[in-house]
Amino acid sequence: MSGGRLSEGPIEEIRSLIYAPSIAGAGDADFRDMCALNQAHLVMLAETGILAPEMAQEIAAALQKIAAEGRTALPTDPDLEDPYLAFEARLAEIAGADLAGRIHIARSRNDIGATLHRMQARRHWLAITAALDEARAALLDKAEAHLETIVPGYTHLQPAQPITFGYQMVSLATALERDAARFNDAYARIDACSLGAAALGGTSFAIDRELTAGLLGFSRVATSCLDAVASRDFAMELLFAATTLSITWSRAVQDLYVGFTDEFGAIMLPDRIAGTSSIMPQKKNPIALEYLRAEAARTIGALTSTLAAARGTNFSISLDAIREGLDDLWLALARVPGDLALFARIVESAAPRVELLEKRCSANFSTATDLADGLVRDAGLPFRQAHHVVGAMVRAALAQGLGANEIDAAFVERIAEPILGHKLGIDDSFVRACLDPRQAVMARRTVGGTAPSEVARMVTEARLVLARDVAARAERASRLDGAAEALAARLQLLADPSSFAAPSRRAGRP
Amino acid sequence: MSGGRLSEGPIEEIRSLIYAPSIAGAGDADFRDMCALNQAHLVMLAETGILAPEMAQEIAAALQKIAAEGRTALPTDPDLEDPYLAFEARLAEIAGADLAGRIHIARSRNDIGATLHRMQARRHWLAITAALDEARAALLDKAEAHLETIVPGYTHLQPAQPITFGYQMVSLATALERDAARFNDAYARIDACSLGAAALGGTSFAIDRELTAGLLGFSRVATSCLDAVASRDFAMELLFAATTLSITWSRAVQDLYVGFTDEFGAIMLPDRIAGTSSIMPQKKNPIALEYLRAEAARTIGALTSTLAAARGTNFSISLDAIREGLDDLWLALARVPGDLALFARIVESAAPRVELLEKRCSANFSTATDLADGLVRDAGLPFRQAHHVVGAMVRAALAQGLGANEIDAAFVERIAEPILGHKLGIDDSFVRACLDPRQAVMARRTVGGTAPSEVARMVTEARLVLARDVAARAERASRLDGAAEALAARLQLLADPSSFAAPSRRAGRP
Amino acid sequence: MSGGRLSEGPIEEIRSLIYAPSIAGAGDADFRDMCALNQAHLVMLAETGILAPEMAQEIAAALQKIAAEGRTALPTDPDLEDPYLAFEARLAEIAGADLAGRIHIARSRNDIGATLHRMQARRHWLAITAALDEARAALLDKAEAHLETIVPGYTHLQPAQPITFGYQMVSLATALERDAARFNDAYARIDACSLGAAALGGTSFAIDRELTAGLLGFSRVATSCLDAVASRDFAMELLFAATTLSITWSRAVQDLYVGFTDEFGAIMLPDRIAGTSSIMPQKKNPIALEYLRAEAARTIGALTSTLAAARGTNFSISLDAIREGLDDLWLALARVPGDLALFARIVESAAPRVELLEKRCSANFSTATDLADGLVRDAGLPFRQAHHVVGAMVRAALAQGLGANEIDAAFVERIAEPILGHKLGIDDSFVRACLDPRQAVMARRTVGGTAPSEVARMVTEARLVLARDVAARAERASRLDGAAEALAARLQLLADPSSFAAPSRRAGRP
Amino acid sequence: MSGGRLSEGPIEEIRSLIYAPSIAGAGDADFRDMCALNQAHLVMLAETGILAPEMAQEIAAALQKIAAEGRTALPTDPDLEDPYLAFEARLAEIAGADLAGRIHIARSRNDIGATLHRMQARRHWLAITAALDEARAALLDKAEAHLETIVPGYTHLQPAQPITFGYQMVSLATALERDAARFNDAYARIDACSLGAAALGGTSFAIDRELTAGLLGFSRVATSCLDAVASRDFAMELLFAATTLSITWSRAVQDLYVGFTDEFGAIMLPDRIAGTSSIMPQKKNPIALEYLRAEAARTIGALTSTLAAARGTNFSISLDAIREGLDDLWLALARVPGDLALFARIVESAAPRVELLEKRCSANFSTATDLADGLVRDAGLPFRQAHHVVGAMVRAALAQGLGANEIDAAFVERIAEPILGHKLGIDDSFVRACLDPRQAVMARRTVGGTAPSEVARMVTEARLVLARDVAARAERASRLDGAAEALAARLQLLADPSSFAAPSRRAGRP
Repeated sequence: MSGGRLSEGPIEEIRSLIYAPSIAGAGDADFRDMCALNQAHLVMLAETGILAPEMAQEIAAALQKIAAEGRTALPTDPDLEDPYLAFEARLAEIAGADLAGRIHIARSRNDIGATLHRMQARRHWLAITAALDEARAALLDKAEAHLETIVPGYTHLQPAQPITFGYQMVSLATALERDAARFNDAYARIDACSLGAAALGGTSFAIDRELTAGLLGFSRVATSCLDAVASRDFAMELLFAATTLSITWSRAVQDLYVGFTDEFGAIMLPDRIAGTSSIMPQKKNPIALEYLRAEAARTIGALTSTLAAARGTNFSISLDAIREGLDDLWLALARVPGDLALFARIVESAAPRVELLEKRCSANFSTATDLADGLVRDAGLPFRQAHHVVGAMVRAALAQGLGANEIDAAFVERIAEPILGHKLGIDDSFVRACLDPRQAVMARRTVGGTAPSEVARMVTEARLVLARDVAARAERASRLDGAAEALAARLQLLADPSSFAAPSRRAGRP
Repeated sequence: MSGGRLSEGPIEEIRSLIYAPSIAGAGDADFRDMCALNQAHLVMLAETGILAPEMAQEIAAALQKIAAEGRTALPTDPDLEDPYLAFEARLAEIAGADLAGRIHIARSRNDIGATLHRMQARRHWLAITAALDEARAALLDKAEAHLETIVPGYTHLQPAQPITFGYQMVSLATALERDAARFNDAYARIDACSLGAAALGGTSFAIDRELTAGLLGFSRVATSCLDAVASRDFAMELLFAATTLSITWSRAVQDLYVGFTDEFGAIMLPDRIAGTSSIMPQKKNPIALEYLRAEAARTIGALTSTLAAARGTNFSISLDAIREGLDDLWLALARVPGDLALFARIVESAAPRVELLEKRCSANFSTATDLADGLVRDAGLPFRQAHHVVGAMVRAALAQGLGANEIDAAFVERIAEPILGHKLGIDDSFVRACLDPRQAVMARRTVGGTAPSEVARMVTEARLVLARDVAARAERASRLDGAAEALAARLQLLADPSSFAAPSRRAGRP
Repeated sequence: MSGGRLSEGPIEEIRSLIYAPSIAGAGDADFRDMCALNQAHLVMLAETGILAPEMAQEIAAALQKIAAEGRTALPTDPDLEDPYLAFEARLAEIAGADLAGRIHIARSRNDIGATLHRMQARRHWLAITAALDEARAALLDKAEAHLETIVPGYTHLQPAQPITFGYQMVSLATALERDAARFNDAYARIDACSLGAAALGGTSFAIDRELTAGLLGFSRVATSCLDAVASRDFAMELLFAATTLSITWSRAVQDLYVGFTDEFGAIMLPDRIAGTSSIMPQKKNPIALEYLRAEAARTIGALTSTLAAARGTNFSISLDAIREGLDDLWLALARVPGDLALFARIVESAAPRVELLEKRCSANFSTATDLADGLVRDAGLPFRQAHHVVGAMVRAALAQGLGANEIDAAFVERIAEPILGHKLGIDDSFVRACLDPRQAVMARRTVGGTAPSEVARMVTEARLVLARDVAARAERASRLDGAAEALAARLQLLADPSSFAAPSRRAGRP
Repeated sequence: MSGGRLSEGPIEEIRSLIYAPSIAGAGDADFRDMCALNQAHLVMLAETGILAPEMAQEIAAALQKIAAEGRTALPTDPDLEDPYLAFEARLAEIAGADLAGRIHIARSRNDIGATLHRMQARRHWLAITAALDEARAALLDKAEAHLETIVPGYTHLQPAQPITFGYQMVSLATALERDAARFNDAYARIDACSLGAAALGGTSFAIDRELTAGLLGFSRVATSCLDAVASRDFAMELLFAATTLSITWSRAVQDLYVGFTDEFGAIMLPDRIAGTSSIMPQKKNPIALEYLRAEAARTIGALTSTLAAARGTNFSISLDAIREGLDDLWLALARVPGDLALFARIVESAAPRVELLEKRCSANFSTATDLADGLVRDAGLPFRQAHHVVGAMVRAALAQGLGANEIDAAFVERIAEPILGHKLGIDDSFVRACLDPRQAVMARRTVGGTAPSEVARMVTEARLVLARDVAARAERASRLDGAAEALAARLQLLADPSSFAAPSRRAGRP
């Protein structure tokens, strides 16, 4: 950048490693944010009288022109250092250097950068939560479709107790609901406007920060100015929310990954979800699941990158704390909506093999707990003793190659008597009932349990929360749209004061 | 553990690496949580009629005895696998294996473990937020004491603009306020009770999960049961809040660290905050500051550890997802309150060298922006041109070894004229006023600015938020105390039904 | 610490958070290192004449006494700051403050700390590589025992091609061999002595650093002195080697974890390797496998912690760069030998279900590649066309529920003809041979292939490398023992000059 | 990809998230590797007789044509899944599907991918080590130019002892030498060829893996085939070496960053290394230093990403273990050479303020150790007592505002007498000599010390090591060039057997 106190330009390495990527890295959405930011600042400078009306008029017209031209009309010379100065250079081409310089009154690249980051975070927030809500809906639909689909529930990847596929789905939806709640909470920290904080101490011009904030759709002004330019924890928090979210999905796909194996044969996925092999013609590879696991690791890496960059920096402006240190963060956030869409597609198309899985639950000993519970309830055994008897029974059955559905009362009594010193006094129907997976599932009706009625209740509840989240996001999006419209109108009023009467309400106030 | 289907005990490596640390790792607070958890479950089993009154009575007395004995009376044999089974073993010693076994009805180590983790997270939450609020108070006190202490404000560690030390302090308090807000938000995800979720699918016993939740001080029941046993994102979120907090403090101490150097000579710290050298007698080493930077890196590491452990695990129970994978997390959380106390001590005792710093602001060119702003305002220059003139002036002054306080109007005019083609028409008093750091500070009165009045306003506002946070925590703590009292009373009623009348209100309901 | 320029003692937080853990954290091995370090320094000071013989004699006796007393005789007052000053305090109690002070000539806690870290790293190196070599041996033994055990080989966890269990084992051994090579390479960076670097610039006393290095078993002296006290990358490198090692084992156990499921039924593990459930009597939980996965995540976290702590510190002494910043590193290294032992036990006891697995290879289409290869070789098809025909054949077979062992030539021809426009001209014996997993395995005889002969060759080669590594470690250990003996002898000679004649060779030279 | 057993194409998300980036991500160098890999495989298939000469001839010509066309001639349809299949598609366009299919005999995308990763790692190795060696040379040049430039040496960022700027530079060069050694060691793990490992078990075709390895410039064949396709630790090791390297540079630039402040005023950097401010005309911002700190954090993040992705995957092929899980790794490695060039530029242009720094050393008490050492040596005090006396003297001097150069013997005696009970008997010339920084530096002549002669010796030694590293890299590069030439010649011989006589030596053998 020309000006300032420097007598020579930057070396090639600074140009190619720092300046060029900064300018090239700004996409269309970043450009639109840059336009809005400059427009809002201009409107504020004009409405507060810091900038004379005739100057404001010319600049307003130039800003309208730049917005209409689009991003590609901006110069890309690395010597311009960053997107803001590239923008200002274009403004100078249109309106002359004098006027272009005036719009930088009462601000700095520090508050501009912080504000653009908040706008960027807001965009990511909108895109991610929208995709997240679709994934939640997909899980809830799946849950509802499989309220009675009996499947083995695992702990330590060993069959533990029969549950339903719908229960698994609603459980994941519950976890995602918590991820969504973290995003919702994070918005409060994003939603404050840094513009007007200037370099780090505020400005001596009598600006109206609330006006700018409102025109840019923010609810409030970020204070102190030093904190407003020096901190990016709002972005880290967003990435953390994305990271736990990615961990949730990585665990969900790991269940599908294992279930999709030939050996489990539990889950069917359509060909359109799978990849094939260049050498092994029989292969149907669940690469999309592996991809989503990789993505979760990458969010962890990006989070580490950003946290490590900020640690131990001075509490102020430095590239590691507020610019290049965040590069991995923005890249990671940008990938999340696509990942969630892929996840939703997978959920929609995953199909459990219903008959096989219920049959498996009947044969493995995943209802052993129910037999033990039954012995507690009906045969009056203490829990530990019942557990001991059933454990011995399972050991014996496995040794003899018997499945759970081949056990009768006599078998149980033969095991129990030497342990207890007496018979249990149970009959075959008791044993069959206890060991029947469907009965086991139906019996777990307490709050949060796997019984279809309870899962249905949880689905209904989750749909309510989801609907509330969707509505809240729509309200936020609409607020942003409203601010954008108000900004456009007031800019137009500046550019052509005769064009229409002043808006009756003070639009754009937070 | 005896029982179950296993025919031989674990190998030594499992005993020494997994079981022994699990049992040895449980401290006094963990023991108290374990007691409360068992008591609440017993009360619930008794009140719902799942357990017969006479059995409940005996167990209640035994549980009271265990609580009175304290942690050291528990067996420590690694073969017991974990703290819960050690507890049960002690219960069996007192009340007999039959009764001891009955208390495990309708639950599992999975929901016990998840519930204990939530109680542990709650304890960390209380300890950390209390220490955090003290640190915030220390910063606000310091801010108030230094509203008019002029210090250089830096960007890129270069003098940028004069600010006040009080402004720096309130800025850090603002950042910590956001860290506190993250903790507050996190509590909602912690505050749900997993007990009764059993292994993963709920239970067929007609338990009352809301009762147990209330007796343990939780606001609600965690559903679904699978999610309630499989997820620990509430703990990760707590650690993330601690991580950004630690980054905030690492940045604050980095500022002090640099300011404490001989060369900056900006900050004084008392000897009690410093370490000395074994070889260099002149040294006064700010090791506490370095320690706090190290701690921030360690929280990042612990966060990475836990996130990496959970990624790609099945959505259910596994040691990496819900036990050993969290080991680093708990260790990191436990260190945070002490770290915050150390930070608060440092803040309380750090003292800026008031005169030297204001003098430095007068000499360095950190008011150059103000001169440029003045030229915009009073001499009608566009910002960029004013910036250009002042940049050239600074370059000339530095070349001649002049400080900002040695510049007069003639000097500025000599620089400006060849650039602008005309004189600025300014006088010495204008230049002096623009370059005076105190005037520069006083002028930054807009929202969030460094002017003393605005800093005072921010301090007042921050104190209100702090007071609200303190009150909310007190309310939470008191709710927990109330639940503990209700639990003790109802346990006593079980142990000795004649002891007093039933409580009139249904204490312990969430 | 008394002395220095400080006028008041440290605050309680510094005592409890920094000093107390430092002193309490030093174990027996650390104490022995501390003794050796002081002894070597004394011998050097005496032999170079920097310390007068009579003083050296008294100090030597005192050092012998401290070593004999053991660690518990050292004071533990946190005011002593760290283990070295605790050691010196004990020395002062025995030999008087005057003499105790003299041993600190020409050194500093900086070079002491760096040297102790190198000795500590060396100990970890020895313990880890010993355990690693046992794990390699266990894998090679297992490989040899299963040269002909046909199992499905997976990619993307889908059956890809039949391989042998022995092949899997030798493949893991190969990966561990590379991990071992990294440890071997790392030793060169550890094996240099920092003692005598003093605070950071060396010393003006005419010390003999090579002598000290030799007496402590180091091969060379670390230069420059600044680098010697400021850098700990040798320890980070050790942790990185441990991290990739842990990732190797995490992947190995993940294969076993999946294979151990009921559904795969591929791997048997004895009860002594498994855990049980407190509620589900049928469970046999592979918790040791999950534990080892968790450990791998924890090494990643510890590595992140240490790297993040060092980043951006000044290139010199600071707690984050060279002390507390390494805390997680040392804790992580200390866990590795136990983890490896557990891994070795698992490998030793894991048993594939031989018949079932070969049968599975016959039925799934993991030999489809071989049929395609056969069509290329014998029917002259281009590879892509053969791949296409066989893919279509598999799809048809799966649709009809046929296993690979139920396919005959007619079936293949029916699929191929519409694709190729002609018959393939193959017969049943061709198809059977191509689809037979044992033949497929036997055919992969090229370098590194799964054929038993080639696996046997690889095992033999790996055993040679292992033997070489074992011998190299023994040589290193013996060198360290030799140095320790030489040191003891020379210390004894100082303490009692009459005790025996001077050693003929200059023992202790690097 | 068409073919295989799949009946429908992938969904849009798989195309856009997985396939398209894979194809678009391959740059010119990747294309050249892909060409070489296919050429080498063809030559091997032809020379071993697996492929008939006339077929080989046609394919050879087609491969030559593709190489000549360049990357842009390859199709980019995402349905092609990855760069290899895009390459094969182009081959089919030129030579027909029949011949194109034949070149995939005896291999798989698994071994192709692993081999390309090794070639990619090799390229990064060459680029990084070349840039690293330049940085080392820059430091050594700087060291040599400043052998006698006295500067304060810091510990805990407090003046500790005077050292020289040259000493700092050679110390950093030593650290980088160790980083370079890690790269050198890593090469051994990269330098093995995976081609011919096929999918995971080797192939039944009688291929010559050593021939392919040699033609591609590898020293040996990677075995086992499973390990050869499943492991990427060689790449992680490269990234780890880059990470410790980046930490070294981050620490070096942190020293410059602090030294470049107005307050330290220790280091001058030319304008071409600095950035300016958009608002503060006096600013000269060391953004390049901050950028390099950020880069170090990003390598940590990329390392975490990759390690976390691989942890717990099956030991075989999956996207997280061997493809997308490495995305951040390759991006991070690609940035290292530029970062090193920037670092070298900074080192070259950084200039200490020679006079000011020596003067500062005279005034601060960084020679206090030397006075204490002098009292030990000449006044016979034990070290601790000397340390105590000098500490008290410094305290008194600071209290009176005296610099070290203002201290005389009387002052010291006044402090010492009450402590010791007697006079020291020292004179002014003794005190002056002890406190003179230049004498202090000159006196530190022991191995690794800061004395100019010793620094000069270390520089010479470091230049020798550097020359050896440069030569070794040249030898490696030349070996790769030789292999490329041999490959081109043998391909040409295939394409046009009449073109020239067979090469006399068996070029391309490892």
